Amino acid sequence: MTSATPATGPVPTPSDKFTFGLWTVGWQGRDPFGDATRAPLDPVESVNRLSELGAHGVTFHDDDLIPFGSSDADRDAHIKRFRAALDATGMKVPMATTNLFTHPVFKDGAFTANDRAVRRFALRKTIRNIDLAAELGAKVYVAWGGREGAESGAAKDVRAALDRMKEAFDLLGQYVTEQGYDLRFAVEPKPNEPRGDILLPTVGHALAFINSLERPELVGVNPEVGHEQMAGLNFPHGIAQALWHGKLFHIDLNGQSGIKYDQDLRFGAGDLRAAFWLVDLLETAGYEGPRHFDFKPPRTEDYDGVWASAAGCMRNYLLLKERAAAFRADPEVQEALRASRLDELVQPTLGEGETIAQLLADRSAYEDFDADAQAARGMAFERLDQLAMDHLLRAR
Amino acid sequence: MTSATPATGPVPTPSDKFTFGLWTVGWQGRDPFGDATRAPLDPVESVNRLSELGAHGVTFHDDDLIPFGSSDADRDAHIKRFRAALDATGMKVPMATTNLFTHPVFKDGAFTANDRAVRRFALRKTIRNIDLAAELGAKVYVAWGGREGAESGAAKDVRAALDRMKEAFDLLGQYVTEQGYDLRFAVEPKPNEPRGDILLPTVGHALAFINSLERPELVGVNPEVGHEQMAGLNFPHGIAQALWHGKLFHIDLNGQSGIKYDQDLRFGAGDLRAAFWLVDLLETAGYEGPRHFDFKPPRTEDYDGVWASAAGCMRNYLLLKERAAAFRADPEVQEALRASRLDELVQPTLGEGETIAQLLADRSAYEDFDADAQAARGMAFERLDQLAMDHLLRAR
Amino acid sequence: MTSATPATGPVPTPSDKFTFGLWTVGWQGRDPFGDATRAPLDPVESVNRLSELGAHGVTFHDDDLIPFGSSDADRDAHIKRFRAALDATGMKVPMATTNLFTHPVFKDGAFTANDRAVRRFALRKTIRNIDLAAELGAKVYVAWGGREGAESGAAKDVRAALDRMKEAFDLLGQYVTEQGYDLRFAVEPKPNEPRGDILLPTVGHALAFINSLERPELVGVNPEVGHEQMAGLNFPHGIAQALWHGKLFHIDLNGQSGIKYDQDLRFGAGDLRAAFWLVDLLETAGYEGPRHFDFKPPRTEDYDGVWASAAGCMRNYLLLKERAAAFRADPEVQEALRASRLDELVQPTLGEGETIAQLLADRSAYEDFDADAQAARGMAFERLDQLAMDHLLRAR
Amino acid sequence: MTSATPATGPVPTPSDKFTFGLWTVGWQGRDPFGDATRAPLDPVESVNRLSELGAHGVTFHDDDLIPFGSSDADRDAHIKRFRAALDATGMKVPMATTNLFTHPVFKDGAFTANDRAVRRFALRKTIRNIDLAAELGAKVYVAWGGREGAESGAAKDVRAALDRMKEAFDLLGQYVTEQGYDLRFAVEPKPNEPRGDILLPTVGHALAFINSLERPELVGVNPEVGHEQMAGLNFPHGIAQALWHGKLFHIDLNGQSGIKYDQDLRFGAGDLRAAFWLVDLLETAGYEGPRHFDFKPPRTEDYDGVWASAAGCMRNYLLLKERAAAFRADPEVQEALRASRLDELVQPTLGEGETIAQLLADRSAYEDFDADAQAARGMAFERLDQLAMDHLLRAR
Repeated sequence: MTSATPATGPVPTPSDKFTFGLWTVGWQGRDPFGDATRAPLDPVESVNRLSELGAHGVTFHDDDLIPFGSSDADRDAHIKRFRAALDATGMKVPMATTNLFTHPVFKDGAFTANDRAVRRFALRKTIRNIDLAAELGAKVYVAWGGREGAESGAAKDVRAALDRMKEAFDLLGQYVTEQGYDLRFAVEPKPNEPRGDILLPTVGHALAFINSLERPELVGVNPEVGHEQMAGLNFPHGIAQALWHGKLFHIDLNGQSGIKYDQDLRFGAGDLRAAFWLVDLLETAGYEGPRHFDFKPPRTEDYDGVWASAAGCMRNYLLLKERAAAFRADPEVQEALRASRLDELVQPTLGEGETIAQLLADRSAYEDFDADAQAARGMAFERLDQLAMDHLLRAR
Repeated sequence: MTSATPATGPVPTPSDKFTFGLWTVGWQGRDPFGDATRAPLDPVESVNRLSELGAHGVTFHDDDLIPFGSSDADRDAHIKRFRAALDATGMKVPMATTNLFTHPVFKDGAFTANDRAVRRFALRKTIRNIDLAAELGAKVYVAWGGREGAESGAAKDVRAALDRMKEAFDLLGQYVTEQGYDLRFAVEPKPNEPRGDILLPTVGHALAFINSLERPELVGVNPEVGHEQMAGLNFPHGIAQALWHGKLFHIDLNGQSGIKYDQDLRFGAGDLRAAFWLVDLLETAGYEGPRHFDFKPPRTEDYDGVWASAAGCMRNYLLLKERAAAFRADPEVQEALRASRLDELVQPTLGEGETIAQLLADRSAYEDFDADAQAARGMAFERLDQLAMDHLLRAR
Repeated sequence: MTSATPATGPVPTPSDKFTFGLWTVGWQGRDPFGDATRAPLDPVESVNRLSELGAHGVTFHDDDLIPFGSSDADRDAHIKRFRAALDATGMKVPMATTNLFTHPVFKDGAFTANDRAVRRFALRKTIRNIDLAAELGAKVYVAWGGREGAESGAAKDVRAALDRMKEAFDLLGQYVTEQGYDLRFAVEPKPNEPRGDILLPTVGHALAFINSLERPELVGVNPEVGHEQMAGLNFPHGIAQALWHGKLFHIDLNGQSGIKYDQDLRFGAGDLRAAFWLVDLLETAGYEGPRHFDFKPPRTEDYDGVWASAAGCMRNYLLLKERAAAFRADPEVQEALRASRLDELVQPTLGEGETIAQLLADRSAYEDFDADAQAARGMAFERLDQLAMDHLLRAR
Repeated sequence: MTSATPATGPVPTPSDKFTFGLWTVGWQGRDPFGDATRAPLDPVESVNRLSELGAHGVTFHDDDLIPFGSSDADRDAHIKRFRAALDATGMKVPMATTNLFTHPVFKDGAFTANDRAVRRFALRKTIRNIDLAAELGAKVYVAWGGREGAESGAAKDVRAALDRMKEAFDLLGQYVTEQGYDLRFAVEPKPNEPRGDILLPTVGHALAFINSLERPELVGVNPEVGHEQMAGLNFPHGIAQALWHGKLFHIDLNGQSGIKYDQDLRFGAGDLRAAFWLVDLLETAGYEGPRHFDFKPPRTEDYDGVWASAAGCMRNYLLLKERAAAFRADPEVQEALRASRLDELVQPTLGEGETIAQLLADRSAYEDFDADAQAARGMAFERLDQLAMDHLLRAR
């Protein structure tokens, strides 16, 4: 492993705000066609190793830390050991979430399960872990509704299910408000897998849903690279829209090779150019939250490979950050952006104080507008994109 | 052709509210790799033929009716002939839209083109056709931003583009308000094609965007079957969410065989089972708008094939409507829905007046909840789905 | 469950040659995000229940019948019980296969694992089960190389891996020849999952590979509906090409809703129209092998749901068979096929005995050919396809 | 444009064997939703400009050079001008092909059109251009059957169509043999677009088909990056299989962003990491044919953008070639490849001279094999892949 340490390049530090889910490095490699290839990983070991690698913190599902069905005494012991490791390393817990998908009781969903008793249990399980999240200082509580969906048409009345989903988030919003927790929610969309179709399948659907809640200000999104790419969507575009709505409360970074099963590759693997534009966006748009990796080290790897994969996530982010900064700083790029009229896009279409009547009276806008002449102007996007490629590849 | 007339089954009438775009039956079959295979079709001929087939009305882009760049005199003549055909047949124009994509001037978009002059021209072109739409009695004005997007990462600043998109819709909303038009807008999402990535790629993204407008009540969505399916999304699910938000202002019906280029097959072709669930939803959810077909008769067809294809759209809708009604009316289905606890999904998760404190105090909800016993209950979805299959296939 | 029995329609019998993998009804519902929802199923119970439902036989992976690592004595006991159930019911075992994917030792593949010791173990494991397959009267031995692939570019030298794959099939071909087994192999392609990319990803790649073997006559393909559809391919087209090459040795029937994770829905679910054309093809092309269902009853189901799902597979096949036969027998369809010139497609392009020189001298073929006039003839495909829709829906 | 010239890095020369289709830089930007944005480009201008940029040659469809329906005199004049430009620049024509898709006469296909007269015309059109290709020194004749397919199930009898496809290739093979042309064919697969489903949809299907021809040695494949990626397939894997079969006769390089419409981006755009592995493969596997770019400069571009895009294709290839060479030369990479046991993959699974009986007698291969111990060994693929990333990004 030591020989794998890169000789050159950026080194992660806590100020980079890199965080990892306990379930990521702790994934044992069980997949739909195969048994676990790695032994269980102690959360304390994860905290220690990730700290050594330069991470800022860890995140967890309740069941990652405290096995489902633990007694209260066992639960306390698990939490105590975990806190001690956090204290010893200085690692933070900026986010937590609930496992509402592994136990068979959630086979038809949690907040939108047809069975009301399951929905009540899901709410209780969530609230219990919200208390712990608040106690550990988390500022964001993620909600991935991976089982909220269906495989067949009549199995789920989607409008009724959205009523139940709203009921759940309204109640949780009320709870954190009443408790005075400094905690906001982040809905994590996914189009499918493990259900045939999942509710709130994309960043867009989640953003729309949030607007219907009683406390929309408490709820944002937690987009995951691979989840949007599983729908063939442009991830940086989706993040840009989330930012535009002021709703990027958290982000899950990983890699995905196109429309297929959820791969959870390390960040940078999969669509590298999209990763470049994503980092460019996050670093220039003022996003201040954690850079959270939600990946699965491939099951071909032993634990050396797991840590190499985790290190690779951070390294790739930092490399792309360097390249994106160089791209934006390059005077030739700035000139190329003007040649492509990016400066015109930020100008309002109507002049300051211009009325509709004035627009309608402006013959240059329509009657005298020479569409063919305008159309003949090239946008110069290919040159601009090649400059980006050159910076990504450090070829200039 | 006469021999192709189905011997049995439902016959469309204007009360079914079937409408067709002039550009659908009028598509000449030009595709990225081939020239037109059909001669131009006179809009008046379309009105007449569609009326004979049982349609309720037609819809149009400005340029479908009035070629781009026509003189005012020519424009008036085109409109006059068209109105005469409408009057003669009783056909309606419930919707109109703007062509902001064919002319090369829109190669980088319209409302979000980097070039401000293009944006102003696009607004003027749109307003001009809104006036005509209102004059012809349209109640919905569709906006498909097919060119609002990019092929490369730096070519479009998405947040700035969304600012421009909002500016455009705010202005158009103000315009129809000031004019007193009884006209609402419907945004039509599409993930890609003809641009590499299009802004507002799904129903969800469009719904989210609408919430940021000055007059959100004036703007809804116009989802198209194939557009959502190009992102691998469940179309009936997306429609259900749009209905849940009260935003299904219009709908584009067609067929698509999975994630690939935009096929615009006749309704029923492509994913037939999704079409069944869609009709089931529209007919039971109280959707009262037009059933609008936005399809392209394959370029292998001559005009006999075009009309056969248009007739097929309506026939398939009516067949599916029959089958969905039989499904819902079947007592065995009703019993199966209860067996799958669809009746429980409509019940609130909290009891009437139940507080969070009461939920937290309910030991049956968590401490005494037997997750394993609950998990052992089958959901009986396979039986339910097979009943739907049987009704779809008229096998019971 | 009794109430779910369809009141009408076709009833499966062993002469329909429906077979099921033990791993299908026996799937416990473990998925990448969730634990098992069903208790283990005794293979003997599967044989009995499937026999009652009208199946012809069952198929198995070695580990379905005999847990990995069983002693010889346990192995014999498992086989003995299984044979007794077969004898009692008259159920057949027309196919068997090897599990080369569940145990972690296969995490990097089996026949193409980088580790030579794994490859040798995989060969031995396969040969051992081939002996059992032959003993149980199987005629086809399926090889799904689900772990033969990679997640990253340098991890697998594909050409070297194909050398190893060829070595394995050449050796297995030699083995069954030397043993005098009446057993042929069927390669099962899949594009991805559980590996990022799997070797021999489609029916086409497998057919090409087979031609490079020492005994190509011993090896054909076992296409699975969902596997080809995960690549967006037209399944009936792929089957038609396999038949054209004389290589359809076996088939895996199930359902898939487009390009996403491997769903293994019951047959008929997913793309129903493709299922119709598939049955039409199998029933008219003289395919005489088993109609083998390789599906996974959704994990929402208990065992009542499992058997309902299995029954649904057979019912849907028989319903589609009825509809396809009616389509082909309809005189109007036959006339429509002629109108679409399907009769011309079976005629050779050159006349009987016509030479190239004669073709070149035929002015009507080129110099005097009126391309525009020819192009004006419609293909009448829409009418033909609507007739198929009408028959599928029993609307005529 | 001059300012867009990269300041540093590799410069293409004819020895790099870069070639471009006339239809690539000459694409006018007509797409399914928009009219041409660029004026026609004189083929002579293309030859001159591409030569200046460092290309080795150009390729063409008959109709690119000689408009469909030209008189013999006009045809000769077009060819004469073109040859003069070739002579003046030293540019080569290593490949030619037939346009069997643009004219409406090919709306249902060419070699597999249902109409026999169309098939005969297609053969004659092809032979005529084969003569010209041979005359111009081309060594490869590409056949893209873009219209050989269907949108609906009964419209094409696939087995009959494959008979006609075979008839066509057998006849063309006979023709070039009889003429003594030093010309081989390369079939170009594509899964869909412009037809709903195209015959021979992937590299695999084409390779399989070729084996059924009378002169298989004369026919190979011409894979296109985007075409395989439209089916979600790993392009370097497909190329490796084509090389393994000795059938990579030509290659079409471009870029594609996942499963969607055919984008034809410049090489390097789209999936950059796949492009890296592709160049690595081509450069190490001894492929000696042209590096042929089959891309479409986006319709946002004017001709400055077109030439920038063409230059970008070559630049990206050369940059990736540099990085791949550095990767392979790095001692740490070589050690990592051994750590991942790539060296073991090239070793036969059986020992030299080892018989099946010996394998069966080797207890270490099965009875004494410790599967768990073997499974515990990590494959170290993540470290290896990160080394590749570092070299791609020039971060070491």
